[in-house]
Amino acid sequence: MIADLPRSGVIRDGVHFFPIRIYYEDTDAAGLIYYANHLKYAERARTELLRVAGFEQERLRQETGLVFVVRHCAADYRAAARLDEDLVVETRVTGVGAATLDLAQEIRRGDIVVVALDFRIACLGRSGRPQRLPPALRAALDKFTAARVPLRDHGSNSSGVTSQHAR
Amino acid sequence: MIADLPRSGVIRDGVHFFPIRIYYEDTDAAGLIYYANHLKYAERARTELLRVAGFEQERLRQETGLVFVVRHCAADYRAAARLDEDLVVETRVTGVGAATLDLAQEIRRGDIVVVALDFRIACLGRSGRPQRLPPALRAALDKFTAARVPLRDHGSNSSGVTSQHAR
Amino acid sequence: MIADLPRSGVIRDGVHFFPIRIYYEDTDAAGLIYYANHLKYAERARTELLRVAGFEQERLRQETGLVFVVRHCAADYRAAARLDEDLVVETRVTGVGAATLDLAQEIRRGDIVVVALDFRIACLGRSGRPQRLPPALRAALDKFTAARVPLRDHGSNSSGVTSQHAR
Amino acid sequence: MIADLPRSGVIRDGVHFFPIRIYYEDTDAAGLIYYANHLKYAERARTELLRVAGFEQERLRQETGLVFVVRHCAADYRAAARLDEDLVVETRVTGVGAATLDLAQEIRRGDIVVVALDFRIACLGRSGRPQRLPPALRAALDKFTAARVPLRDHGSNSSGVTSQHAR
Repeated sequence: MIADLPRSGVIRDGVHFFPIRIYYEDTDAAGLIYYANHLKYAERARTELLRVAGFEQERLRQETGLVFVVRHCAADYRAAARLDEDLVVETRVTGVGAATLDLAQEIRRGDIVVVALDFRIACLGRSGRPQRLPPALRAALDKFTAARVPLRDHGSNSSGVTSQHAR
Repeated sequence: MIADLPRSGVIRDGVHFFPIRIYYEDTDAAGLIYYANHLKYAERARTELLRVAGFEQERLRQETGLVFVVRHCAADYRAAARLDEDLVVETRVTGVGAATLDLAQEIRRGDIVVVALDFRIACLGRSGRPQRLPPALRAALDKFTAARVPLRDHGSNSSGVTSQHAR
Repeated sequence: MIADLPRSGVIRDGVHFFPIRIYYEDTDAAGLIYYANHLKYAERARTELLRVAGFEQERLRQETGLVFVVRHCAADYRAAARLDEDLVVETRVTGVGAATLDLAQEIRRGDIVVVALDFRIACLGRSGRPQRLPPALRAALDKFTAARVPLRDHGSNSSGVTSQHAR
Repeated sequence: MIADLPRSGVIRDGVHFFPIRIYYEDTDAAGLIYYANHLKYAERARTELLRVAGFEQERLRQETGLVFVVRHCAADYRAAARLDEDLVVETRVTGVGAATLDLAQEIRRGDIVVVALDFRIACLGRSGRPQRLPPALRAALDKFTAARVPLRDHGSNSSGVTSQHAR
């Protein structure tokens, strides 16, 4: 299935699926993915979700001065992942505020949740002050969210933690 | 003050202080520290806290097979930090379980909290299963925790968020 | 064209083409790709070249103990590259020794050479000593090299440096 | 000796010495330092050399628009380095042109050269065009270069390569 995913990922039933392959640069001496690198994959996936929705961040910044910054991040590490593996980042928009976005992301290897992450993203203007999301982006995200099917029940996973992270 | 800190940092009143300098590698095109990199600084500081307490992770792994992995991480991004700045990571041990450690860390520029982070760290044995903390490490951490003074009241900071993260 | 490339890239006329997209993690405060990150893209491309040729490094290591390490690297930085750009890594095998591989790589944006790199890679056995390349790998690389068309004449590029790196 | 080095390193006899400690973030699944990361250490050391000489890059950029970029880099990997090791980056200015700087750097563990690197750095103005080095910087570097003692003869090292890199 992963081989089928285009480079920007796809949106299916309101969920964005994005493929990641693990290289040496991603791993550490413990033989696993270094824990901070999962946040890179999550950011790549959010960038591609916006791209698929019609928004390129660099262009948005140049044309309107808007940038997105992470305000809060929570990461639950549940299973090990290693060199040469193929992972998928699943992203759901869980809330759209005036100047913020909430997203739930899972980095998965098949049915295994490797890391579950929750993010609050803020939209800032040129001055660095919070700025309302552009109406076109809000419309695109609302459509995206409306199509979203309920989260699968992941059942238990390797660490026995149920997915209380998904709001 | 930062210039005074030794490379492994120091422990004062049960708090570990560790200096970080920001290089090009740490920044991104938005001109700020890339958000995942703060987790690297936090990990460097935890490593040095253990070193100051008498434990080298690589040696511990070779001699006993024990490794520490992050189970959970929450990061609250409160202020911007930029190239060439001098930051300090403050680390407090907030809980010592049978096979887990809880830590609260703040990355600061002077009195400004740039990022506040909470971690749960698990101790694993050679098999990858949870393993009790070595008694000598537990003793060192208990002593460390007992000496801890209450968290300063940070009051408000640049983002107006109160420090509810600090338990 | 880049959109057409599969995730492991393709081999055409003895040259391996591999797509890269630039994310925030890749950039620095100067607004460009941080210079060391180009070596990550080059390594991803070499990994995928081996994969397309039928060799997965992690599997090779587990089954035979063989690993590949960089002995020498030369990088000529010729043009700037920025956030959200689509680049392609072109890789040519320029020499196959008993226990070494020489490769020439170019990271390109369309016709522009952003960075030109030359590598000598050594094959090591479990002991960390040089080890002969496996015959099957040598056969695959010889076939790959034989199919190679001469390097295009890049003519001049943005920095006016001619491509003297390409042997 | 490393413990004695201040955070910005020191200049002795025209050579800048800068300490590096290896953390998990620096390593990869092969148990060694990931090869691109040595370029980060080299850049940190160049930044600190300039700082010790009285020049902060971010301040220079804001005040004059000048930035330094790597034009060429050659890296010779000679010995393995691992988690928790203490390394030192030695930097020599080997040439000062109108708008360029040449430097030779060695990343060492005691007497062992882990990686030897040569750099050509270009000075660019606000427009992105080459720009003459500021006279004050040139004066500082000339003084630095004049004090330089001849390179030690490293003799042989772990890979048996003589130090032909050092000009």
